[in-house]
Amino acid sequence: MDHPTPRSSFRSPRFAQPPTFMRLPHREDLTGVDVAIVGVPYDGGTSYRVGSRHGPREIRSQSSLIRTYSYFQKVAPFDRLTVVDAGDLDVPPVGSIEQAYAAIEAGIARILAAGATPMAVGGDHSISLPILRAVTRAHGPVGLVQFDSHIDTWPEYFGGKYFHGSPFYWAVEEGLVDPARFVQVGIRGPGYGDDDFDFHRRRGMTVVLIDQVKAEGVDRTIEAVRRVLDGPTYVSFDIDAVDPAFAPGTGTPEVGGLTSHEAQRLVRGLGGLPIVGCDLVEVSPQYDGPGQITALLAANLLFEMLCVIARGRG
Amino acid sequence: MDHPTPRSSFRSPRFAQPPTFMRLPHREDLTGVDVAIVGVPYDGGTSYRVGSRHGPREIRSQSSLIRTYSYFQKVAPFDRLTVVDAGDLDVPPVGSIEQAYAAIEAGIARILAAGATPMAVGGDHSISLPILRAVTRAHGPVGLVQFDSHIDTWPEYFGGKYFHGSPFYWAVEEGLVDPARFVQVGIRGPGYGDDDFDFHRRRGMTVVLIDQVKAEGVDRTIEAVRRVLDGPTYVSFDIDAVDPAFAPGTGTPEVGGLTSHEAQRLVRGLGGLPIVGCDLVEVSPQYDGPGQITALLAANLLFEMLCVIARGRG
Amino acid sequence: MDHPTPRSSFRSPRFAQPPTFMRLPHREDLTGVDVAIVGVPYDGGTSYRVGSRHGPREIRSQSSLIRTYSYFQKVAPFDRLTVVDAGDLDVPPVGSIEQAYAAIEAGIARILAAGATPMAVGGDHSISLPILRAVTRAHGPVGLVQFDSHIDTWPEYFGGKYFHGSPFYWAVEEGLVDPARFVQVGIRGPGYGDDDFDFHRRRGMTVVLIDQVKAEGVDRTIEAVRRVLDGPTYVSFDIDAVDPAFAPGTGTPEVGGLTSHEAQRLVRGLGGLPIVGCDLVEVSPQYDGPGQITALLAANLLFEMLCVIARGRG
Amino acid sequence: MDHPTPRSSFRSPRFAQPPTFMRLPHREDLTGVDVAIVGVPYDGGTSYRVGSRHGPREIRSQSSLIRTYSYFQKVAPFDRLTVVDAGDLDVPPVGSIEQAYAAIEAGIARILAAGATPMAVGGDHSISLPILRAVTRAHGPVGLVQFDSHIDTWPEYFGGKYFHGSPFYWAVEEGLVDPARFVQVGIRGPGYGDDDFDFHRRRGMTVVLIDQVKAEGVDRTIEAVRRVLDGPTYVSFDIDAVDPAFAPGTGTPEVGGLTSHEAQRLVRGLGGLPIVGCDLVEVSPQYDGPGQITALLAANLLFEMLCVIARGRG
Amino acid sequence: MDHPTPRSSFRSPRFAQPPTFMRLPHREDLTGVDVAIVGVPYDGGTSYRVGSRHGPREIRSQSSLIRTYSYFQKVAPFDRLTVVDAGDLDVPPVGSIEQAYAAIEAGIARILAAGATPMAVGGDHSISLPILRAVTRAHGPVGLVQFDSHIDTWPEYFGGKYFHGSPFYWAVEEGLVDPARFVQVGIRGPGYGDDDFDFHRRRGMTVVLIDQVKAEGVDRTIEAVRRVLDGPTYVSFDIDAVDPAFAPGTGTPEVGGLTSHEAQRLVRGLGGLPIVGCDLVEVSPQYDGPGQITALLAANLLFEMLCVIARGRG
Amino acid sequence: MDHPTPRSSFRSPRFAQPPTFMRLPHREDLTGVDVAIVGVPYDGGTSYRVGSRHGPREIRSQSSLIRTYSYFQKVAPFDRLTVVDAGDLDVPPVGSIEQAYAAIEAGIARILAAGATPMAVGGDHSISLPILRAVTRAHGPVGLVQFDSHIDTWPEYFGGKYFHGSPFYWAVEEGLVDPARFVQVGIRGPGYGDDDFDFHRRRGMTVVLIDQVKAEGVDRTIEAVRRVLDGPTYVSFDIDAVDPAFAPGTGTPEVGGLTSHEAQRLVRGLGGLPIVGCDLVEVSPQYDGPGQITALLAANLLFEMLCVIARGRG
Repeated sequence: MDHPTPRSSFRSPRFAQPPTFMRLPHREDLTGVDVAIVGVPYDGGTSYRVGSRHGPREIRSQSSLIRTYSYFQKVAPFDRLTVVDAGDLDVPPVGSIEQAYAAIEAGIARILAAGATPMAVGGDHSISLPILRAVTRAHGPVGLVQFDSHIDTWPEYFGGKYFHGSPFYWAVEEGLVDPARFVQVGIRGPGYGDDDFDFHRRRGMTVVLIDQVKAEGVDRTIEAVRRVLDGPTYVSFDIDAVDPAFAPGTGTPEVGGLTSHEAQRLVRGLGGLPIVGCDLVEVSPQYDGPGQITALLAANLLFEMLCVIARGRG
Repeated sequence: MDHPTPRSSFRSPRFAQPPTFMRLPHREDLTGVDVAIVGVPYDGGTSYRVGSRHGPREIRSQSSLIRTYSYFQKVAPFDRLTVVDAGDLDVPPVGSIEQAYAAIEAGIARILAAGATPMAVGGDHSISLPILRAVTRAHGPVGLVQFDSHIDTWPEYFGGKYFHGSPFYWAVEEGLVDPARFVQVGIRGPGYGDDDFDFHRRRGMTVVLIDQVKAEGVDRTIEAVRRVLDGPTYVSFDIDAVDPAFAPGTGTPEVGGLTSHEAQRLVRGLGGLPIVGCDLVEVSPQYDGPGQITALLAANLLFEMLCVIARGRG
Repeated sequence: MDHPTPRSSFRSPRFAQPPTFMRLPHREDLTGVDVAIVGVPYDGGTSYRVGSRHGPREIRSQSSLIRTYSYFQKVAPFDRLTVVDAGDLDVPPVGSIEQAYAAIEAGIARILAAGATPMAVGGDHSISLPILRAVTRAHGPVGLVQFDSHIDTWPEYFGGKYFHGSPFYWAVEEGLVDPARFVQVGIRGPGYGDDDFDFHRRRGMTVVLIDQVKAEGVDRTIEAVRRVLDGPTYVSFDIDAVDPAFAPGTGTPEVGGLTSHEAQRLVRGLGGLPIVGCDLVEVSPQYDGPGQITALLAANLLFEMLCVIARGRG
Repeated sequence: MDHPTPRSSFRSPRFAQPPTFMRLPHREDLTGVDVAIVGVPYDGGTSYRVGSRHGPREIRSQSSLIRTYSYFQKVAPFDRLTVVDAGDLDVPPVGSIEQAYAAIEAGIARILAAGATPMAVGGDHSISLPILRAVTRAHGPVGLVQFDSHIDTWPEYFGGKYFHGSPFYWAVEEGLVDPARFVQVGIRGPGYGDDDFDFHRRRGMTVVLIDQVKAEGVDRTIEAVRRVLDGPTYVSFDIDAVDPAFAPGTGTPEVGGLTSHEAQRLVRGLGGLPIVGCDLVEVSPQYDGPGQITALLAANLLFEMLCVIARGRG
Repeated sequence: MDHPTPRSSFRSPRFAQPPTFMRLPHREDLTGVDVAIVGVPYDGGTSYRVGSRHGPREIRSQSSLIRTYSYFQKVAPFDRLTVVDAGDLDVPPVGSIEQAYAAIEAGIARILAAGATPMAVGGDHSISLPILRAVTRAHGPVGLVQFDSHIDTWPEYFGGKYFHGSPFYWAVEEGLVDPARFVQVGIRGPGYGDDDFDFHRRRGMTVVLIDQVKAEGVDRTIEAVRRVLDGPTYVSFDIDAVDPAFAPGTGTPEVGGLTSHEAQRLVRGLGGLPIVGCDLVEVSPQYDGPGQITALLAANLLFEMLCVIARGRG
Repeated sequence: MDHPTPRSSFRSPRFAQPPTFMRLPHREDLTGVDVAIVGVPYDGGTSYRVGSRHGPREIRSQSSLIRTYSYFQKVAPFDRLTVVDAGDLDVPPVGSIEQAYAAIEAGIARILAAGATPMAVGGDHSISLPILRAVTRAHGPVGLVQFDSHIDTWPEYFGGKYFHGSPFYWAVEEGLVDPARFVQVGIRGPGYGDDDFDFHRRRGMTVVLIDQVKAEGVDRTIEAVRRVLDGPTYVSFDIDAVDPAFAPGTGTPEVGGLTSHEAQRLVRGLGGLPIVGCDLVEVSPQYDGPGQITALLAANLLFEMLCVIARGRG
């Protein structure tokens, strides 16, 4: 297979052509692909403001501004890696969440089977569980860094096991994630009590509250995160880790969060880790303004993650 | 129970107080209530743009402009009827649609058991099926007028029976609606083929396409509708029957639809019929502009329907 | 004084320069002026959604699209008339409405004293009363055509006499308007009872409900209106006479109203009448969408009115 | 080549996948294609509010709702015709308009050379001129129906010949359009004088003002249009022919226009004519609301046009 | 009276039910209530962009996301305190500001008479004066911390004493606030001259400019604030203390302000003080984007304040 | 000539009157003027989202909040300087960019010839080149500080020399700017490679990347900037130097940028330098939210710059 690269903005204007992730070709055949950026437009696990099913399309649109080189990571990811827009997984939007999970797991498994690393674009946070199921089947239990304002380790909701607040409870319970290598960053918001963290204590997970990030700074937070991570690592970025000023387009926003610059630097800080998959979730374009700055930030964080993966492949 | 009436706008400004439907009291006890306006904030049956779970709240807000008398129906519904805001049904937003259906049917049954007529505010159109199940259990098979741009008689979607495109297929199949007394008004939009109407022909349902409404006018359309209706009647109003210029805040808009004035007059034309229940569905405030004219129209159509019910109770 | 004309769009782009009404010069000296378009940015009489204080500025912006000739009235108003943007009246935004009324009346009186016809751009409908006070002092009691969805003849609100729902009660009571030459067009909306019109019946005013306009058409409505009007006439156009689809940017919208084309044709139908003043009120840009179609319609209706005045000056 | 059809919404949700026109495949190879829907994202000819360069992408998104059969034209265009999304022409967004014209003409010529009929999606109205140059080179002078609120027959602007107000002056002057077979429908708006139509009179073109459409109705307007058209015909639809209530997302809106239903029926009325090309222009998504009803209407009008072409190919 | 708590989001979805502050019951009977959250939807004191009359409703809606425990203040306020949504004060929206002040003072006095602490949700900043009058009558002169970008100590406006720029001038002049215990935090914006602070110097008030906060950090700012405060304290939070990026939905925004995290931490820093009342003002939802992040921030700051009150009650 | 000052907001409400920059008089005669604020509404050099042609009008509107004294620079610029709104340059919006450049250069030259310092309000960044041509003809080669996220030193685009990404390449090549006195601040964003900076290295320009600003702080950044600047200095502020959270209304936003407070302090840090001209560019109101915080920030940065100029004039 040829080596696809983003369409040049000096030959085709950035606003032109059907939008794909980072102006890459849309390819369903993944032979020879290193990284497959894939949309998972499912929001059936959402407990509050819904709409992240429209996240992949808007992130595609805004990713038209992404270029090819990071001044800060000093890497040109499309040179080192073969990257494509693998389209969206056709997840049933209606019916039971279990059906959706089956479709997601199968779709990610297909990407992994082709030898590609999946970079999943949600959709709500419930999608992380079936993705982790597929990733773990290929790689064994993973380390996990979750950027988020919420812990998402509730065991149930309205009598069911699965919704966007429970994926990491089940990921730990199912043995997909090694809790000793699991760190959550940016947690905040009013909660329900100090026992919200009982699960974390019992299983030995690490939590970095937002006040710790703000007080100690990004560099020391990165150190804390990297102390936990080891071996094959999955990255899950819930856009609501970022403050609503920088990321208003999301369903369950929490004030007092990361700035966009802090978010970029935290992702960059993962450089060199062996990333086996990642997701970016909870972008709901309906709640953004006309500038669509949330989808733009999401596209940039995906680019930073791509650079991290490229550095890890040295 | 006292006779509740809308809070007076000459003593409490229209923009003040927690919003309830038509500034009526929010009451969970339905003893002595004639009409219960109840929110059904469920959009788990939505195949395209989601968000009608937020319909009831926005319609409550916009209904603050509703007053107490219709110049055109010449009736003061709150004088004749005891009407309350019965709150929302607590439908699980996540999980299977069957669970949601059970909760909706039970909630409506509770209203009917109290002797009240349910006026349901969606939510997406999938809610009509469990409402009809409850209504029919109380009243037997009903006549039905459906204002809509879509037929919503598809039998399945992604392997399941229920979504917002199938409620009336199953309502007929389950014997909830008498197809001879079932009329759809405003149908249009690109479809899939002339066989879209095979079900209608086979079951003897009546369809009034939008071009027929536009060509013959509202008065003759009302005549055509009333020729079909007879006996206990349910009214289902999908806001996308109206043109997107007048009702942009909806998930599956179809251009070339009713004007707001036509919609008002069509509803008024039902005056005198024995209405046993009704719904207004598919208002998605995220897709409306800052004026929220869709929710305002919805509030007005609910008021017109209330007048129709009042006239039917003479 | 020279004869000012709109800045040419072939020499200065329409989007350029500080916006003035119809790209006319902003002049405070009214010597020799025939028509003074003047902003009255006061919304202290508003009972619901506020914000029409920002109407004049947005209407100025959108009026940049207005050109110089009407294909339908066949008149070039800026040739026949000397027209300027007279700026805004500096009405106190805070304090009592009586203070605001004094400032408005004085400002309009100054325009009339210069021999110019005032074309007032609101602001909410409460401004019509002090304008009529000034106009009547110059011209005696006037005939009045009010395009509106509301009657605005309530005598009081929260213990005071003046708000945007009362100007025409007081205009009649103060003898400013001759009720026999007073006609309201487009009235609708849920009201409070049939006795809403007791005042009209008692004083001999004419009401044309929206259903009459829709049933009989514009031409016959114009005939009905002109049968009433006679002698010096004032025109008050509340933008909420128009349906919210065409005019969402207003504070008290009522569905089921005029189309923009009907509104234009109704104004054109006044051609030849001796207009002594007019206003266009209740444009609230915050409730419009990004296209600002309400302010654009307002600008067009002002242009039509200008053509009507020009024809009346033959 | 296989026969491409829109992606099925029962296997892939409508909101999923990179958006293409009507969910058709994006193909650059046009062998065997009957109709090529092609974006022309150029707005360098715009004199007022700019932004139609973003039209093709938004119309692609909204066209996800288009299905495969017209109830009113009774045709399934994707069965009869091989239709693809041909991507966008890569027109230089900056530089001189002459450069842009060269790129557009070449791109359309390439489509025609492949034997396909071009359906161009603008972009501003200036693109019609280079498209007509290419079409005429293939088919000779064409008949033309232009739906528009503006005449667009000005000969110059700021010292240059080309902008979105001049394409049809030059199309006539260059002999691309036969003025005897050229009809403009929907013209209105304040203009500059009765001599705006001197060019039309001199060259024998036909103008149908909006008041004529409204007074006589759609059927008689279609008759008038078809009396003029004869032989190979080009259709140019400026979305501002439609009223801003139905199409707010445009750069030079004119109030008092067509309804969406009138627009649909006018296009349908062209059925059977030998269409050699068409365009739909001036959709500017920035000026639309969150429901993007303008792009949705545009997608529907393109579908109606496709049905017209299919009927013409019998 | 029972002990009301927020409706559980595991039994009733967060988006469901008529919105009340923090999903608490709406109660007019305040017997046994510790804290009454009350809307004061009055914006008649606004000198620029108006609309904060709609603040209470939108803050109610967005407060649906508030949960029950603060990770950072380590307190569960609804356990310690009996808190209700006391509805809105029915302040006349039209007429003189003195009438409005009388209604506000009476309403707050009623809350205080029931033994509850008022937490007022504006409305514009002019409401602080009548609230302070009522609070002071119950508690004597208070200490006051005002988070704001503006000093709001102008003595008059357009010939009147009261508007949203004067409440603290009159609060000091009337002896409601002890100037030695009065501190303003976050002041900035272009002003009128160094003599803007003459009043502060003369009366011995403390001002912390924004540059001081940014240079010294939140912890040292809290120290400076607490050095001033002593005894019964009132907290007034004008949302425009926060930067427009985090709080765009306000009428008189000033760039260069607090971040949301700084605002949260500043409020938390008041823990332990004897709070006798508080307000949060100037949220104007019309100027926010679709995510309504300003109202969300306001709801969070109210929650932080509630935690502060709970800690003060030990 | 008299000494014009901003219209007093205590005599004329801030929202009233046709908007001009900082409520200054609009004057075309520049005799005796020290600083001319002039709109340059040209966006024909824009490669992505277009619309900055509407920047000057919106910045005028939002500048109504600007007052007369800086608490932080301790200067009252309208006392020291004679400042006016000089209107907009009538730049042809259509045609070649060379024509636009000629119009801009001539317009700025006229201002300089009158002895006034031009403060240009764009428009896109392409306008800086013709402004610098005019400024340099008057003052010789200048030092330049460019606040920006992009370097804007590309030599060509789609075969032409001029667009909003090339002005500073040509400014250096044409000898307008002394590269040794040229510093760019805030640079970031994905780029194309490390050789993006080859031009800077070859010509000896200084680049301060955003990470340097964030790591070292504003004070040390100012020191670095001032070390470079010397002699007559031009300031170019591209609003996209600021993070999209604070400035969403722009065409090519880059996440991870300056806060509004950092931007203000950086501009203030230029105090005392001999400023010979400045521009603020790339504000596109269509991409801002209803609060228009980008235009508000722009107005504030212009005010800070005015204070800087005033301080430089002692």
